[in-house]
Amino acid sequence: MSLLVVGSTAFDTIETPHGKSADCLGGSSTYFALAARLFTSVRLVSVVGDDFPAGHRTLLADRGVDLAGVEQRPGKTFRWHGRYAADMNSRQTLDVQLNTFADFAPKVPTAWRNTPFVFLANGAPATQASVLNQMQGVRFCVADTMDLWIEKQREGLLALLPRLDGLVVNDSEVKQLTGKTNLIQAGRAALALGPKLVIVKKGEHGCFLFSNFFQYALPAYPTEHVVDPTGAGDSFAGGFMGWLANCDAVTLWNMKRAVAYGTVTASLTVEGFGVERIAAADRAMVERRFQELQQFVAN
Amino acid sequence: MSLLVVGSTAFDTIETPHGKSADCLGGSSTYFALAARLFTSVRLVSVVGDDFPAGHRTLLADRGVDLAGVEQRPGKTFRWHGRYAADMNSRQTLDVQLNTFADFAPKVPTAWRNTPFVFLANGAPATQASVLNQMQGVRFCVADTMDLWIEKQREGLLALLPRLDGLVVNDSEVKQLTGKTNLIQAGRAALALGPKLVIVKKGEHGCFLFSNFFQYALPAYPTEHVVDPTGAGDSFAGGFMGWLANCDAVTLWNMKRAVAYGTVTASLTVEGFGVERIAAADRAMVERRFQELQQFVAN
Repeated sequence: MSLLVVGSTAFDTIETPHGKSADCLGGSSTYFALAARLFTSVRLVSVVGDDFPAGHRTLLADRGVDLAGVEQRPGKTFRWHGRYAADMNSRQTLDVQLNTFADFAPKVPTAWRNTPFVFLANGAPATQASVLNQMQGVRFCVADTMDLWIEKQREGLLALLPRLDGLVVNDSEVKQLTGKTNLIQAGRAALALGPKLVIVKKGEHGCFLFSNFFQYALPAYPTEHVVDPTGAGDSFAGGFMGWLANCDAVTLWNMKRAVAYGTVTASLTVEGFGVERIAAADRAMVERRFQELQQFVAN
Repeated sequence: MSLLVVGSTAFDTIETPHGKSADCLGGSSTYFALAARLFTSVRLVSVVGDDFPAGHRTLLADRGVDLAGVEQRPGKTFRWHGRYAADMNSRQTLDVQLNTFADFAPKVPTAWRNTPFVFLANGAPATQASVLNQMQGVRFCVADTMDLWIEKQREGLLALLPRLDGLVVNDSEVKQLTGKTNLIQAGRAALALGPKLVIVKKGEHGCFLFSNFFQYALPAYPTEHVVDPTGAGDSFAGGFMGWLANCDAVTLWNMKRAVAYGTVTASLTVEGFGVERIAAADRAMVERRFQELQQFVAN
């Protein structure tokens, strides 16, 4: 089934201990779409400036990402410049220019308003809610968020959470959201805020899935060659949602596999700068790695 | 089969956000023995001072721990005083008095020198080696170590490693030992130093098992009520070694289960101050939690 993603498109300048890559294609919805397209057709709602090259459009379109929802506006595309610490577990933002993304008011094309699977990439809760308001008959909606919104737009976020099937957050965000220091307590407290599912990303330590009916833990794929962690979280969400949208039903069994496919797509992304590795990936590569992961965690 | 452990016995004063417990029974070999005795008979080699009360001996002996190797010497028992940070992921040592443990020269009773399973709890590599020198026909020997020895007695540690079947370390220690920042690379590099098996403990994030033939990852048991993390690592090692010693053969299948039982015994320890919870545990409690853990990670 079709999958709609709403989020940022950007030019990223990335510095890691393995090198530097300037002005490469990035943004939450880009990473998400390039992971999700490995499993299903993806509809992208985003905004770019008039500096956005045709080559980037082609890269996405050639991989089955429908760009009918990408608005091009006068001005520049969102730019981000970050530098990772030696162990790549933390990063410093050196520069952000929101540009055309500053007043992004996503408009879902009419023909897309009944898309069954929806991912609201990181953005202001009010903006995320405005997307849901445009949709009809959503079957499964998941949103990402970040420390900024948890702190500055808590009310809006709390209003959004009960409308979600799933919330994707990292470990520090779920602790911040709930005020719990124990991650299991935090996951359960986040559930109590309304979403049916809480997915907690722990980077190299894998992830947890919380629902009112089960808890599930999956270690990360044992990647030895992390060169750039940018986009790992969005690629995880893309693999997760892409695989679920490809399934007939959102069952526990399918959700566990979706978490594993998200883990695999994230592991591919971090092995290259920017989107180079995930853009070059194919389904056979994903399936090989999925089997390796299953082997790694088999009891 | 019998299991020999060599390590410290201590009086611990522990401060955590959940309270304070003064002069409680502790030490690496105590936690190890109280976890391992849930699965097999345990032989304890340690040293205490003349202040060590009969009640502590009884607590251990009543649970099937053979104390024939516990030497009582004039002076005081090893004392440690620590305080945990709010999230309990880091701690500060406020006071250490080595006392009789300062010149601990372990003597393995003659009748115990052919014990098939041996655990060398954290200690100077030369002391650990001196134990191995006393043993004959060891079938499976695992050692723990710490940052101090990796930094100060590296040569001795490197000489010990090829004599081990297994090395148990935490994530920061294996990175320090190998100079690798990626944990998978670090685990494999540690294997190259000689042990047949490297077990990396990641606290709340579970553990990795590395051998030349397989890698295995297991998340931690989802404990919500951590009150005191002291002894978690030694309790993990105790569950791991205790269950393996109880098996007929050290197979991959048995090792994976051993890791799960170690995870379970560690999860019990951290739910009480000092040894109170692990000392009160019984096998039925362990089996229940083992099943819950299997459920938590089932793919």
